Amino acid sequence: MDAYAAIRTKRDSRSYLARPLDEGVKRRILQAGRMAGSSTNRQPYRFIAIETAEQKEALSACGGFMRHVPQAAWVVAIAMPKEHTLFDAGRAAQNMMVAAWAEGIASCPVTTHDTEGTRFVLGLPDGLQVLHAVAFGYPPDPARVGVGRPRKPLAEIVHYERYGGARA
Amino acid sequence: MDAYAAIRTKRDSRSYLARPLDEGVKRRILQAGRMAGSSTNRQPYRFIAIETAEQKEALSACGGFMRHVPQAAWVVAIAMPKEHTLFDAGRAAQNMMVAAWAEGIASCPVTTHDTEGTRFVLGLPDGLQVLHAVAFGYPPDPARVGVGRPRKPLAEIVHYERYGGARA
Repeated sequence: MDAYAAIRTKRDSRSYLARPLDEGVKRRILQAGRMAGSSTNRQPYRFIAIETAEQKEALSACGGFMRHVPQAAWVVAIAMPKEHTLFDAGRAAQNMMVAAWAEGIASCPVTTHDTEGTRFVLGLPDGLQVLHAVAFGYPPDPARVGVGRPRKPLAEIVHYERYGGARA
Repeated sequence: MDAYAAIRTKRDSRSYLARPLDEGVKRRILQAGRMAGSSTNRQPYRFIAIETAEQKEALSACGGFMRHVPQAAWVVAIAMPKEHTLFDAGRAAQNMMVAAWAEGIASCPVTTHDTEGTRFVLGLPDGLQVLHAVAFGYPPDPARVGVGRPRKPLAEIVHYERYGGARA
């Protein structure tokens, strides 16, 4: 899929088929995350790829909005050094989600509110934490992905030169 | 450009030609940012598009690593509510940068260390802050974009089921 089309049509979606992702797709998604830039090229992220029902269930118990995680075909938890900006985690996550969507795979980021629980479930070393994971899976009805997730008009979001500035 | 190709080959790059970006390209980049998902679809970001030399110079003075900002053809500052996660700012920024690169335009995020200075320069209201901006421009030599920005091998970044876990 064309890059702009993939970016423009990608919506976060929490309904997935049981159909597994093949190894090639998973590898491309991880490569997409790996290639995301980061502050001073530190590449601070580690990706924990989760496929077993046990780990998906355990991770799902670590957040308030993670009930869809066990239904996901595949989950990638993003571990980051505590002191590093989450801006770079967002960059890597978006790369993974757009690459997935370009192959017809839906996704949704999830926030792990229970950071100590997540640390235990994922066996994280000191200094690393997982605040976000991404759930992936084929959507039951691709045409319905994103229905009901409108965006604010561009004119409301974009300002020129200064906050509140109108177009020249 | 194909989505995966754009994602895989995009590197952060700080050298730009003076050539301006046309209105269609700028609109697609802003649309790419607008379409990024956000926590509970709050769409917390506001994009301040900067083109005048005065504003680029003023913004450049607000960070330690922003000397390339005045050379950029176009700069988009990302304003976020202080309480909202920067993960979503990173998602929007990555969408904009990948959409730009798919059209041959290089970019690099910059961090604005002087948040009070940025507030003054951009006229931000209370509650919003700009911690990141993205500089855009055509690269002098597209073939050299990203040379010298290697990534760690996938095997070092990816773990399975748990931190340190090997592939099944």
